[in-house]
Amino acid sequence: MEGIHEVHDLEKAAAVLGWDRQVNMPRAGGAARVQQTATLRRLAHEAFTSDDMGERIEAAAAELGSAEGESDEACLIRLLRRSHADARKLPPELVARTATVSGEAQLVWERARAEDDFSAFRPHLEQVVALARETAERYGYAAEPYDALLDKFEYGLTTAEVRALFDVLRKALMPLLAAILERGRPPDDALLRQRYDVGRQQRMARYLAEDVGFDFARGHLGAAVHPFAVSFSRDDVRITTRWQADFLSPGLFATLHEAGHGLYEQGIHPALARTPLGRGASAAIHESQSRLIENMVGRSLGFWQRHLPTLRELFPAELGSCTAERFHRAVNHVAPSTIRVEADELTYNLHIILRFDLEQALLEGQLAVADLPGVWREKMRELVGIAPSSDREGVLQDVHWSSPNFGYFPTYALGNLQAAQLWEAAMEQDAAIGGELAAGRPAALVAWLREQVHQHGRKFTPDELIRRATGKALGHEPFLRYVTARFQEVYGL
Amino acid sequence: MEGIHEVHDLEKAAAVLGWDRQVNMPRAGGAARVQQTATLRRLAHEAFTSDDMGERIEAAAAELGSAEGESDEACLIRLLRRSHADARKLPPELVARTATVSGEAQLVWERARAEDDFSAFRPHLEQVVALARETAERYGYAAEPYDALLDKFEYGLTTAEVRALFDVLRKALMPLLAAILERGRPPDDALLRQRYDVGRQQRMARYLAEDVGFDFARGHLGAAVHPFAVSFSRDDVRITTRWQADFLSPGLFATLHEAGHGLYEQGIHPALARTPLGRGASAAIHESQSRLIENMVGRSLGFWQRHLPTLRELFPAELGSCTAERFHRAVNHVAPSTIRVEADELTYNLHIILRFDLEQALLEGQLAVADLPGVWREKMRELVGIAPSSDREGVLQDVHWSSPNFGYFPTYALGNLQAAQLWEAAMEQDAAIGGELAAGRPAALVAWLREQVHQHGRKFTPDELIRRATGKALGHEPFLRYVTARFQEVYGL
Repeated sequence: MEGIHEVHDLEKAAAVLGWDRQVNMPRAGGAARVQQTATLRRLAHEAFTSDDMGERIEAAAAELGSAEGESDEACLIRLLRRSHADARKLPPELVARTATVSGEAQLVWERARAEDDFSAFRPHLEQVVALARETAERYGYAAEPYDALLDKFEYGLTTAEVRALFDVLRKALMPLLAAILERGRPPDDALLRQRYDVGRQQRMARYLAEDVGFDFARGHLGAAVHPFAVSFSRDDVRITTRWQADFLSPGLFATLHEAGHGLYEQGIHPALARTPLGRGASAAIHESQSRLIENMVGRSLGFWQRHLPTLRELFPAELGSCTAERFHRAVNHVAPSTIRVEADELTYNLHIILRFDLEQALLEGQLAVADLPGVWREKMRELVGIAPSSDREGVLQDVHWSSPNFGYFPTYALGNLQAAQLWEAAMEQDAAIGGELAAGRPAALVAWLREQVHQHGRKFTPDELIRRATGKALGHEPFLRYVTARFQEVYGL
Repeated sequence: MEGIHEVHDLEKAAAVLGWDRQVNMPRAGGAARVQQTATLRRLAHEAFTSDDMGERIEAAAAELGSAEGESDEACLIRLLRRSHADARKLPPELVARTATVSGEAQLVWERARAEDDFSAFRPHLEQVVALARETAERYGYAAEPYDALLDKFEYGLTTAEVRALFDVLRKALMPLLAAILERGRPPDDALLRQRYDVGRQQRMARYLAEDVGFDFARGHLGAAVHPFAVSFSRDDVRITTRWQADFLSPGLFATLHEAGHGLYEQGIHPALARTPLGRGASAAIHESQSRLIENMVGRSLGFWQRHLPTLRELFPAELGSCTAERFHRAVNHVAPSTIRVEADELTYNLHIILRFDLEQALLEGQLAVADLPGVWREKMRELVGIAPSSDREGVLQDVHWSSPNFGYFPTYALGNLQAAQLWEAAMEQDAAIGGELAAGRPAALVAWLREQVHQHGRKFTPDELIRRATGKALGHEPFLRYVTARFQEVYGL
């Protein structure tokens, strides 16, 4: 199906432009880049939604005979039918407008955040909310508008299902957090907050990324203000991180996180290349892979028993007397923060729940953009116990609302749940994996993930993938077991 | 004319992919990148050559009334008519095939050069030569096939005209070179060949690029094996350079060279943005701007009288006792080399003449690709007085023949001639410019170039531009005056 290669190439080209924008582009280049990206997105959309494409998909389906089963071809036909039908619901004009509004909103957001000026961003956010509503209406939904958007990130999942999961999370995490803060023995993370030479941080981060299996012959590590991962092909996967000279954690853990995303893309079966199957199954499944590497692997005691000597060699003055136990406790420090990307594993999900609630309220018109900063502060205090002193540390902190991708935020917390469920299943299915992880060696886990998750790309829906790999639907229990055990141990509860 | 924006955006996206390929891409990503680029090039070509585009151009012409004169609109119509007619001569299939063959040839060339293995590259070069022939036949020509290709880089120039200019050059440069080598007092360039910390080289190069006027708020300096410049818009101009820890010249002078290209792109009038006029007038005119900055400015005594103190501060151990006079002589060292990009100003043109001759012979079928390495060695000895000991230092040294862009090489030497003619004209027209340059300050010259060259983008043909700026057609005299004066002085002849 030659047509899908063209769409694929256009989308990958847009991805290259997006990566470059965040890693290399001088600020002034933004206006032209918005136009270039909008053109590529529009052309990809036009090509994919053409009648001709619909006919090709049906011709391929007829040739195959049945679109049932797990063959690459059958999975491709199913995905193409679904996404073609979805895409045709959006007129090209709306797609181009979304790209333009989002591109411009992001440029304004960057300045607004820097200057703590919500009023500058407000009209753009209003446009974004209107676009999200328009998009939801175009897609259509059974129960509530948010379903239409969520479905594009996590196919088959409803808002009601997410709400139920998040209600359990909220009810379990808030008391756990309270217990930790009231009765826990807090680790000392001052050792992470010394001067750390960035060049040496880079060497350590690269070494860790390689250790968890990221292949630099098919990958690249760059720097970006907001770390992310993106794939231009399974043989060219870019991860980015950010370096802080006075804090060791962001560089190391953002690298591990993005390396987890990168492993996924590098592990997709080559037979799926240049088709819509050649990417991660969903946003949440993708996040599960990054969280597995960052947290289950990267914040485990075994991992630091293995790697602290290397880190100490790079930073003898800073870490000369530090033990693995002390380092492990420091990187599992729980501290309510106003900033999502700085949040610990426990409060992180509360940040997501906040955004999930606000997105629904904005979409349904129950909350006006003008009232958002105040409501944000109030809800943040309620959930995390701390309110931001500025919009820059509040509602302006995330880039996400520069585009109408409502429904994306919840995938971060869903990814945490999936990560824990996959991690438990891996150790149950192969007794050796737990031992290897305890010794700080992730290779056996990564091999299991490659087999169960990575290679399949987007062949299966998130629900199918989780059931195939773990034998059951996604639940909250494994994650709650995991965080409770980890933080009770770290905090001596 | 909305259609031309789409074509423009596709071409710029392809340029981003090309830049990224050379600056960031892991090798393994090459195959997918070739496909992505070929798709963008094909789509741009299809859009530009459509009947619809032809009708839009004629409708715009009719609206304008006359396509004569120097208004932006009239210049745009003339250029669009010409390039639309040219582009329609190439079937989309040929354009996509050219992108694919070139992309693959380049990947093979990189390995073939590293391994000094011409036989690996040979079948690809044969394909490239066949493509060049096919392309020339498609375009058509009056006198000889090479005319058809040359015309695409230097509109209106014939092979016979270039041959005549190059014959004069050859006859003048070879005896000058012989005199220098036999009777000259050679400068000592050992001081450039010490260990120079790359980080500090980078600081110096950036400082120099800013000093000649390159605007980093609208530009970016990266590293590439083969330095180049490319523009994604006048507000996002990328230059690249290469660093050698044991030789100071490449990093500094490649940066100045590429900054010269960059100044041109940054100086194009904003009104020409997102149209085919928003780029340099021709390959040779572009090269003239880089040569002006690299050589007329960057290798002048005044420039180093002004900047050597800064360089000495960065490298006190290496250059503590060096005088500007000595440094100036060192950076004007003439030494026949087998490598074009390492050649001095004098022998450089002889390298180009070699390639010009060989391209014609290949295109006309007088020279078989299999015989190329031997003929290369023979002719190199004849022209420059030195033969390469390997193909890697011979026929495999340049990336250019990975694509059928025959006719590009001569623009390097033509750029040298144009540079000298523009430089002389600037000093004749404004007496202050010479004094400023003698004091090492390029701003007045750059302002003149902006006025006479940069702002016009591609509004004028190369011949029109040179006549407007200098009052006469391109000649060899200014360049020969310039090199003779410079090297007689440096070599004490």
